[in-house]
Amino acid sequence: MCLREAYDLVRVFPCDSVANAVYRMNDTWLNDIKWTDDGLLPVIAQDAASGDVLMFAWMNREALALTVQEGRAVYWSRSRNKLWRKGEESGHVQRVLDIRLDCDKDVLLLKIEQVGGIACHTGRRSCFFHRLEGQQWQAVEPVLKDPDTIYQVM
Amino acid sequence: MCLREAYDLVRVFPCDSVANAVYRMNDTWLNDIKWTDDGLLPVIAQDAASGDVLMFAWMNREALALTVQEGRAVYWSRSRNKLWRKGEESGHVQRVLDIRLDCDKDVLLLKIEQVGGIACHTGRRSCFFHRLEGQQWQAVEPVLKDPDTIYQVM
Repeated sequence: MCLREAYDLVRVFPCDSVANAVYRMNDTWLNDIKWTDDGLLPVIAQDAASGDVLMFAWMNREALALTVQEGRAVYWSRSRNKLWRKGEESGHVQRVLDIRLDCDKDVLLLKIEQVGGIACHTGRRSCFFHRLEGQQWQAVEPVLKDPDTIYQVM
Repeated sequence: MCLREAYDLVRVFPCDSVANAVYRMNDTWLNDIKWTDDGLLPVIAQDAASGDVLMFAWMNREALALTVQEGRAVYWSRSRNKLWRKGEESGHVQRVLDIRLDCDKDVLLLKIEQVGGIACHTGRRSCFFHRLEGQQWQAVEPVLKDPDTIYQVM
């Protein structure tokens, strides 16, 4: 992490206990967001260094509050219906460096550092590895690590 | 547009009439996509040159088919309940250079050239201009053009 990133991290996530308590007490910034009827928010995760879009997921209020408090991406898994600390099984944690909200306040963009360089459960750097070529989706990014070895018991 | 981008454009969008007819007839690539129950697909638009994430929107099948046929982003406006050719009023067309689908085949990433350099209806380059600083969302990107002048009758 460079000095600039460290500076940004400290500015966005003051991580002493007083600040965390304030986060819990004052949730105006969470109320500003236009959540879906299901209480969710679409989230784009982008590699802060390369600019590559790595994945897309969802958060609920708790997931976003935890993301800010912990400085790592915490999503809401719609398939498992529970909080999902990205990297909890794989170790591929996403350190959050910057949090952006769009003009309509209903979509989030995280600029992250992807630990291990792999965001996708298939073992690829990015989830967006299917490229439309002619009339077919072609997998155009290499598998960097066998998923069977990624999800061994940590 | 550089030579590489032109090459990519031709490869992804063979634009003669025969190819277009084939696109209309063979929609396997559209069937491969996991649409929502409402028949929609979340779409991320990324500036192909800078890597900046510019906006987030939705497509239905027709919007995506038209995007491929026309080589410009066509979305589905959920608020207006109709097709939305990005730039149809503002002139801020998005030329599509690359189309990616994610691992679960339910999220699209467009790499685009943003005509006019403004993607956001507020007159900013990107829609993701609110930055979380402490407990507040701060607008951190400049308005490049007054929205009142963007949406004058073309």
